[in-house]
Amino acid sequence: MRDLWLIGIGTGNPEHVTLEGMRLLREAAVVLIPRKGAAKDDLATLRLAILRAAGAEARVLPFDMPERDPALPYQDRVAAWHDEIARRWIAALEGAPEGPVALLVWGDPGLYDSTLRIAERLVPAPAVRVVPGVTALQALTAAHAIPFNTVNGAVTVTTGRRLRDHGWPDGAETVVVMLDGECSFQALEPSGLTIWWGGFLGMAEQVLESGPLADAGPRIVRARAEARARHGWIMDTYLLRREMG
Amino acid sequence: MRDLWLIGIGTGNPEHVTLEGMRLLREAAVVLIPRKGAAKDDLATLRLAILRAAGAEARVLPFDMPERDPALPYQDRVAAWHDEIARRWIAALEGAPEGPVALLVWGDPGLYDSTLRIAERLVPAPAVRVVPGVTALQALTAAHAIPFNTVNGAVTVTTGRRLRDHGWPDGAETVVVMLDGECSFQALEPSGLTIWWGGFLGMAEQVLESGPLADAGPRIVRARAEARARHGWIMDTYLLRREMG
Ligand SMILES: C[S@@+](CC[C@H](N)C(=O)[O-])C[C@H]1O[C@@H](n2cnc3c(N)ncnc32)[C@H](O)[C@@H]1O
Ligand SMILES: C[S@@+](CC[C@H](N)C(=O)[O-])C[C@H]1O[C@@H](n2cnc3c(N)ncnc32)[C@H](O)[C@@H]1O
Repeated sequence: MRDLWLIGIGTGNPEHVTLEGMRLLREAAVVLIPRKGAAKDDLATLRLAILRAAGAEARVLPFDMPERDPALPYQDRVAAWHDEIARRWIAALEGAPEGPVALLVWGDPGLYDSTLRIAERLVPAPAVRVVPGVTALQALTAAHAIPFNTVNGAVTVTTGRRLRDHGWPDGAETVVVMLDGECSFQALEPSGLTIWWGGFLGMAEQVLESGPLADAGPRIVRARAEARARHGWIMDTYLLRREMG
Repeated sequence: MRDLWLIGIGTGNPEHVTLEGMRLLREAAVVLIPRKGAAKDDLATLRLAILRAAGAEARVLPFDMPERDPALPYQDRVAAWHDEIARRWIAALEGAPEGPVALLVWGDPGLYDSTLRIAERLVPAPAVRVVPGVTALQALTAAHAIPFNTVNGAVTVTTGRRLRDHGWPDGAETVVVMLDGECSFQALEPSGLTIWWGGFLGMAEQVLESGPLADAGPRIVRARAEARARHGWIMDTYLLRREMG
């Protein structure tokens, strides 16, 4: 049984790593690094810079992230993809030094991330330790200097896919949307809604927009397309608040 | 106009502070430290330990937190309390050295925290910078090594008061509850619900319980009462997940 450390590294600002994260990177024997997609080089570079800053001496083992099979229905596609990633971890770890294995997880390992689910597939089960990291939600509210919730208010955290499929969540005042490749706020009736949007949050390329959804929506669609064209990829998140009567 | 830095310090584990937080504590000229309630000594001690670890040389200015006026209705009571805290910041800052003023904010400054709302009351308006910190939600999911959301699932973040007043949020699968002094999960019909609970998350005193709500609920009520009796105060948070048919 191996120790497996899932270390949240924040969403692009290397100063968002915690002291605990830095210490465990230094104490790890092996670090698994994914290579993937359009953001491949930018993200691998960031991970290596964090390891260097931590003074990590771990053996760094890269693995290629598989593609998802578009022929499968959504939940099956995700499950098959997790199975395949688990196989690639095992392959990468063959012959690796003894001792704790660390993964640098984008944001926080608990929030819209597969790493915990992939770890569950390992046999024998590793001893998993989760190290919290700054999430995209926090990078968003910090960048705009706004609170996540109103006084005693609730917040719904959801995905672009759910917003398109189910519309505005019943009775919600504040909705935060992640994993949205399509500016799904365009599907909402904008009156009474205010949006705070951020792309590349915490990174040098950070872009922010905010305002009443009716005006800010089209501005965000443009800003997102521009930023994406410039960098070849983008990650963005937004918070919507409904005026409560 | 002053620079005002709201620095998230996590929820009790001094290693949860980020590199950015540590750097800004070192660069601040003044640090405002609240003194309050039953947890007064424990929390003030933690804040001072973090300042020491950061190598901060700022002037430390304590201020006493006012009481809330129980005679006022909830929203007015909160507003009057924020006004009074803003007055105490101003009084504490009289004659303080020039330069950036830092506050060490519990968890993340965006999540169920008053500091941003108090800062808005200052005239002239300070230049506010928010530094994200690990929240109690993240300390909870990390301690249990569980994901916050199911695959593509939504999550509602809410308060004990709302859970008592409004019951289970419409259509919700995962609900995270903060600011609950009364184990409000007891008001829910437990069938199909699983709970993951944590008190003193991230701290040496951390207590965890989890399981189907029907069994775990009474265990949590006991564990909470015991931990509270032992320390004189407690902070706890929990995540509830409903089995979706
Ligand atoms: C697979 S999820 C990972 C979330 C991550 N675990 C966290 O804690 O933030 C990826 C989504 O997070 C959001 N995201 C992550 N990093 C971001 C960044 N730097 N700027 C804006 N959004 C980001 C985007 O919504 C993106 O689609
Ligand atoms: C005023 S709110 C502050 C939340 C904080 N800003 C954050 O980001 O977590 C206080 C509530 O946070 C939760 N909390 C804060 N620290 C905690 C800890 N160490 N363990 C368990 N719950 C905690 C409790 O639900 C508590 O009632």
